[in-house]
Amino acid sequence: MVVELISVGTELLLGNIVNTNANYLSRKCAELGLSLYYQVTVGDNESRLSEAIETALLRSDVIILTGGLGPTKDDLTKEVTAKVLSRNLVEDEHSRERMISYFKRSDFKNITDNNWKQTLTIENSTVVDNDNGTAPGYIVVTKDNKRIILLPGPPNEMIPMFRDSMFPYLRKLQPNVFFSEMVKICGIGESMVETKIFDLINNQSNPTIAPYAKGGEVHLRVTAAADSLEEASSMTEPIVKELKNRFQYHIYTTKEEETLEGVIVHLLKQYKLKLTCAESCTGGLLSGRIINVPGASDVFNEGFITYSNEAKSKYLGVNEATLLEYGAVSEQTAKEMVIGAATSTGSNAALAITGIAGPDGGTEEKPVGLVYIGCYLDGKVVVREYKIKGDRQKVRDYSVIYALDLLRRCILEDYKSKI
Amino acid sequence: MVVELISVGTELLLGNIVNTNANYLSRKCAELGLSLYYQVTVGDNESRLSEAIETALLRSDVIILTGGLGPTKDDLTKEVTAKVLSRNLVEDEHSRERMISYFKRSDFKNITDNNWKQTLTIENSTVVDNDNGTAPGYIVVTKDNKRIILLPGPPNEMIPMFRDSMFPYLRKLQPNVFFSEMVKICGIGESMVETKIFDLINNQSNPTIAPYAKGGEVHLRVTAAADSLEEASSMTEPIVKELKNRFQYHIYTTKEEETLEGVIVHLLKQYKLKLTCAESCTGGLLSGRIINVPGASDVFNEGFITYSNEAKSKYLGVNEATLLEYGAVSEQTAKEMVIGAATSTGSNAALAITGIAGPDGGTEEKPVGLVYIGCYLDGKVVVREYKIKGDRQKVRDYSVIYALDLLRRCILEDYKSKI
Repeated sequence: MVVELISVGTELLLGNIVNTNANYLSRKCAELGLSLYYQVTVGDNESRLSEAIETALLRSDVIILTGGLGPTKDDLTKEVTAKVLSRNLVEDEHSRERMISYFKRSDFKNITDNNWKQTLTIENSTVVDNDNGTAPGYIVVTKDNKRIILLPGPPNEMIPMFRDSMFPYLRKLQPNVFFSEMVKICGIGESMVETKIFDLINNQSNPTIAPYAKGGEVHLRVTAAADSLEEASSMTEPIVKELKNRFQYHIYTTKEEETLEGVIVHLLKQYKLKLTCAESCTGGLLSGRIINVPGASDVFNEGFITYSNEAKSKYLGVNEATLLEYGAVSEQTAKEMVIGAATSTGSNAALAITGIAGPDGGTEEKPVGLVYIGCYLDGKVVVREYKIKGDRQKVRDYSVIYALDLLRRCILEDYKSKI
Repeated sequence: MVVELISVGTELLLGNIVNTNANYLSRKCAELGLSLYYQVTVGDNESRLSEAIETALLRSDVIILTGGLGPTKDDLTKEVTAKVLSRNLVEDEHSRERMISYFKRSDFKNITDNNWKQTLTIENSTVVDNDNGTAPGYIVVTKDNKRIILLPGPPNEMIPMFRDSMFPYLRKLQPNVFFSEMVKICGIGESMVETKIFDLINNQSNPTIAPYAKGGEVHLRVTAAADSLEEASSMTEPIVKELKNRFQYHIYTTKEEETLEGVIVHLLKQYKLKLTCAESCTGGLLSGRIINVPGASDVFNEGFITYSNEAKSKYLGVNEATLLEYGAVSEQTAKEMVIGAATSTGSNAALAITGIAGPDGGTEEKPVGLVYIGCYLDGKVVVREYKIKGDRQKVRDYSVIYALDLLRRCILEDYKSKI
């Protein structure tokens, strides 16, 4: 079944808000195995909204509209939908009762006149109660058996309504069951990933492999459609196995919700490691990312932001001679930073980052984007050199990813053999 | 001029990423006074992308496409655009040279075959260099004098390219002159801001006031349209003056490109202050944000991430008795943290954050979201208590904003009178 999403609201076209509704509904449609082919955003404008609905009715089986169900004059979605379908708007007694009871419970003592507009429903439609606001949702079946679903715009109203009512409704319409697995890769570029699976992507139909890049990582979604969940899952299995075979240790997880920093914290816990970080150009982003994992306090006690040479010497014991001879951005300094971080805190794991994030500070010999990352694990030190292309933000973000990946691989190499 | 935005990428339709590009470009079009009437998202699919471009050419004057310019087989935007316009793809020598030089500088030693695809350009188009990736952008003028703009998908490539090349290009096409000013507010909630300017927003036509909330800040864009820049600017002036009058010190800048951390670094430089940060629940995010400002090294030498009680005592000299009696999340601990951070480093400015970011760790007395922020300035200490509603990420992000704002206001209060 082909689905089309129509987001209604001038605030979206003006960029006042980010369309997170479209993102949520897209994910849900993917979960249902529905083919979402089009997302369209139009303002609170009758003719352009009419046109969008008419176009959608020609090419899609399910049309999901969000926004424009509120009490104001601008809110036109229900009115325009009714007009396109040549149906009347009729008073819904149930919605009227709910409206009265809502206002009795709420802060707003008086129901303003325009609120009554929300008690009108499209003829022959199903009204879906809104437990978090005044605008109900609607499910309309057209004479061609197409479905039009109307949802309120505010995410805190839309999400519960979709999840509890529309999602189960759509699931019942679906003949196939869909199952998808996620393979998350880091430490290897998008085009290299693509090259390595060119043959698989080229021959895909069911299951499908969808790659996408996400700030230094590449995620591959493998999706199969079948009559049962078991069958669908058995179809993705050999593909995931093949991907594991091709990308080996570059795959940090096959769990949808797991993040790179989450995997690191899990590994640190598993092997009873305590981590400390010493950061120069990333200035706290690495520690910040690790501490983003709930429960990180079990594995992370402290970190250092040593932006100046003095701080590198004072807190990490980096030799002044090293800084003078090789510079703050050098393999030698990264090595002394990471050893100093570990020994001064008594940690058995440490990461150190020193680099030139730019836009200034680059030279011919040491250009912007040159980053050294040191990893300390049980007395063993590894330092890697990276050349990252991009602006200050990208150099810093990628440095964090590379550092996390380096630690992950060091732990796996050192500890896997010991188990 | 009517603008249409076409976002290309199956990852958007699957909900793997949020379409922040559409939001950025919408805001920029609003700034230019362009009428953005349609946002359309399609997958990496030739026939649906063709259809989207053909439809856009019928109803819009400027079509901005993002995504699908990369090296992989999925990336079709340039190919499909050329086909719709019946133009050829031709080798661009300049892009080829840039590609070779890009790969010489980067980590990935070998250019994979599919990368060469990015050196092809649409006949009679303008190639726009990409300084942050391998895919150039393009500006195509059709025979009907419509403009098609092709931009890469990753925001860190798209934004600088649009800002530096396409934005000035579009401005030149505009008959009306638009002038806008930005008023950036922090330390006051979105709904409070809206309440305070309800009358102004209600009566607006030209200039307009567009508010939008951005992670703990509220930005108000005031835009006027006129025949000349002078006229437009004289129209925004009284509105900005009125906003300044209403929000006073809550306004941290009226400069478009200036960030809160940028303002802080500027103030620190201006008053010859050296800052250090001691972070618990934010774990490096505060320092990371300050170090994001180019040239932050002049005012920031070092920072501490003291997540454990031991680290708070060891590096900041927080009394164990204080931690025992009042707990790590307390006014007293925040005070000792910030004094310790300043004195141990000899800094004349310091910030300390300690709080409960959640999801665990909250109690009846000290709930999730309780945060204490200490600010030290020339021997004077201020500690503030905050109760932040939201998830772990929000508590941490808002803590950073509140800390920056507290420092800003302390500096202004202390130093303004001395000048």
